[in-house]
Amino acid sequence: MINLAQKVLIASDHAGFSLKKIIISELNGLGIATFDLGCNSTEESVDYPDFAHELSKKLKNEFGILICGSGIGISIAANRHKNVRAALCHNIKCAKLARLHNNANVICLGARLVKEKPALAIVKAFLNTKFEGGRHERRVAKINP
Amino acid sequence: MINLAQKVLIASDHAGFSLKKIIISELNGLGIATFDLGCNSTEESVDYPDFAHELSKKLKNEFGILICGSGIGISIAANRHKNVRAALCHNIKCAKLARLHNNANVICLGARLVKEKPALAIVKAFLNTKFEGGRHERRVAKINP
Repeated sequence: MINLAQKVLIASDHAGFSLKKIIISELNGLGIATFDLGCNSTEESVDYPDFAHELSKKLKNEFGILICGSGIGISIAANRHKNVRAALCHNIKCAKLARLHNNANVICLGARLVKEKPALAIVKAFLNTKFEGGRHERRVAKINP
Repeated sequence: MINLAQKVLIASDHAGFSLKKIIISELNGLGIATFDLGCNSTEESVDYPDFAHELSKKLKNEFGILICGSGIGISIAANRHKNVRAALCHNIKCAKLARLHNNANVICLGARLVKEKPALAIVKAFLNTKFEGGRHERRVAKINP
């Protein structure tokens, strides 16, 4: 069950704009509040690190969703921030493992590599899954060098 | 064509140990020199961030390969290092985009999510592909905040 008190920050570059809008609409329909941190169209070519840094600086206890063409660039940039554990997820199994084992707080998607319907299922699996703790707690604590 | 002068650092946790050995054997067979930074068996349960940090600290002009169960934890930890652009890749398209657009110098694999034969093809696609530069140069420069 998705925790409706859990707010979601979301941002994308131009390649991820359309998928971002679809995800926002789906999450809002489920009663989940979102904060859209841009970009604002598919037309202007923007730089994915700008959006990764903007969301990462704002992220406190919320979840984050970041989308670019492949999800790779935006995940690298987000993981420069010590408060962020950003997981690039291609399927539901990945999304669940990212929460169960890595306590990921940001999910990254590649808009050019995943279709809309699976993308929505991946995001929901991520938001629905709780961190397992235990031995994973020790490993997560070592992520910041 | 893979550049045979390009050395490769490689590390994994216990979940990635077997796949690491297969990749080392394949690359060595192609004439590519590898440096295996551990771990050294499937038997001892180790912590993926230790291997991400070890490889990241050593990485200069080489390529890196990092393997854990899902590839997620090890990619988050590696991307804490400013000299590393670590791309979690599930398929050949991903691997090519990581080099073309993000000038990634480390590829991460999830040993529990990708089979041996595709994993070898993904690694070779990564090592074979050159950074495209151009507008991507500006974006890569923005990855470090």
